[in-house]
Amino acid sequence: MKILRFTDNEGIVRLGTNPADGMATEVIAAGDKGYEPTGQLRAIHCFLAPVQPAAIICIGLNYREHAKETGLELPRYPVMFMKNPAAATGHGQPVVLPESCRKKAQTDYEAELAVIIGRPAKNVGPGDALSYVKGYTIGNDISARSWQKHAGGGQWVRGKSFDTFCPLGPVMVTPDELPDPDSLGISCRVNGQTMQQSNTSDMIFAVSELIAYLSEDTTLLPDTVILTGTPSGVGFTRKPPVFLSPGDRLETEIDKIGTLINAIIE
Amino acid sequence: MKILRFTDNEGIVRLGTNPADGMATEVIAAGDKGYEPTGQLRAIHCFLAPVQPAAIICIGLNYREHAKETGLELPRYPVMFMKNPAAATGHGQPVVLPESCRKKAQTDYEAELAVIIGRPAKNVGPGDALSYVKGYTIGNDISARSWQKHAGGGQWVRGKSFDTFCPLGPVMVTPDELPDPDSLGISCRVNGQTMQQSNTSDMIFAVSELIAYLSEDTTLLPDTVILTGTPSGVGFTRKPPVFLSPGDRLETEIDKIGTLINAIIE
Repeated sequence: MKILRFTDNEGIVRLGTNPADGMATEVIAAGDKGYEPTGQLRAIHCFLAPVQPAAIICIGLNYREHAKETGLELPRYPVMFMKNPAAATGHGQPVVLPESCRKKAQTDYEAELAVIIGRPAKNVGPGDALSYVKGYTIGNDISARSWQKHAGGGQWVRGKSFDTFCPLGPVMVTPDELPDPDSLGISCRVNGQTMQQSNTSDMIFAVSELIAYLSEDTTLLPDTVILTGTPSGVGFTRKPPVFLSPGDRLETEIDKIGTLINAIIE
Repeated sequence: MKILRFTDNEGIVRLGTNPADGMATEVIAAGDKGYEPTGQLRAIHCFLAPVQPAAIICIGLNYREHAKETGLELPRYPVMFMKNPAAATGHGQPVVLPESCRKKAQTDYEAELAVIIGRPAKNVGPGDALSYVKGYTIGNDISARSWQKHAGGGQWVRGKSFDTFCPLGPVMVTPDELPDPDSLGISCRVNGQTMQQSNTSDMIFAVSELIAYLSEDTTLLPDTVILTGTPSGVGFTRKPPVFLSPGDRLETEIDKIGTLINAIIE
């Protein structure tokens, strides 16, 4: 099932499925039974991130080709960092460039498969890991590169945490529709030009291995979003570098999920 | 006012004040009016972290003497990283050393003043910043040093995110009782021996400056916990190094707040 989260014309937050022509069939979460339709058709005023993240955990350098382009060694363990949870935004919502990121062009795109945890996961083995997944969506780990490099201590969190720097959506696809997250085409376009094109099969650590690693003696809370890393082709490694500017149109696409579209604005 | 969050003997989560002899006077949060007593005296079964964190944001290298002992340059900007929110635990609760942190002794203490945000804070100036604070508590940013250094990409999040690696408490002190967070004695003892002893006046970036910096184009959600950095005296910089072992008793103390006590266990 493909589930979207949206506000209707009264500003009420709802879940729905089958979005078409600005309308969606409303559903409600029914625990183990998944999602049940209410029979109501609702107007979509605004797409929200498919969940309000309990935490946003990110993996760095997880595609072989991307690790190569950054000039960094292939990681022995997944590289983990986080984004402030308020950075999440939805399909069709703008990514807002902060003033401090416009003085020097630096804001970059990173198309990523996003995994949404459904129940508390701790010390989960790789064989069992996917049973903790509530669904998959598309994410873009928007990154202010100067902040990322120079904001101190080599820590990436500050430059990745501005509001709207984590678009997610348009929908969450439940695992019954997407049993193999490790063989999906993934791409990113800026103003129609393809900048990233790869497949999640290029990931160094598969989704199940990431959940096992992250949950070692550590609880992944329900609605934790895991951004699983980005393929090669990001802006800062290009010659000349490509950064996002106000007016740009960003499209992030993953097979079997859809296309997440966001405008870049000041 | 000093507010604690606890479970009673039925496992119900409550807020209280004036803990004594295992009992507390129950209060309820009354929005702008602060906290109002219900008139009930309740048994404290278990202290919880004073809030369930919406996010745990940490500042590194924020004490002049600590920056010196690590051999790193004084930061030009606050060094920001995060901990998984499920790492929070309360006063009197154990800090559990994961198996992977016991093979090689590496788990370190970091006494810190913790600031709890009360309402959404975005683009807040330093002059106004403290009005966004709901209260102050004591935190200890427990850190697995090998994980922190070697888990990949130089990112600190993984080694700081194990469950129980963020004890907070015993109480949250409201700002009316603590108008100046930047001149508080802070110390840490392991098995009664003083390992850290300093004052928040040694902080490079004051609490109001941290809130201003972190909230630049970034929303700090209510119940975001900011750990403001640790003074000198941490274990890994000692000669010989001192690391936490099962059976140790960790006491973290800050003037006007109290003493946070945690046992280290396997």
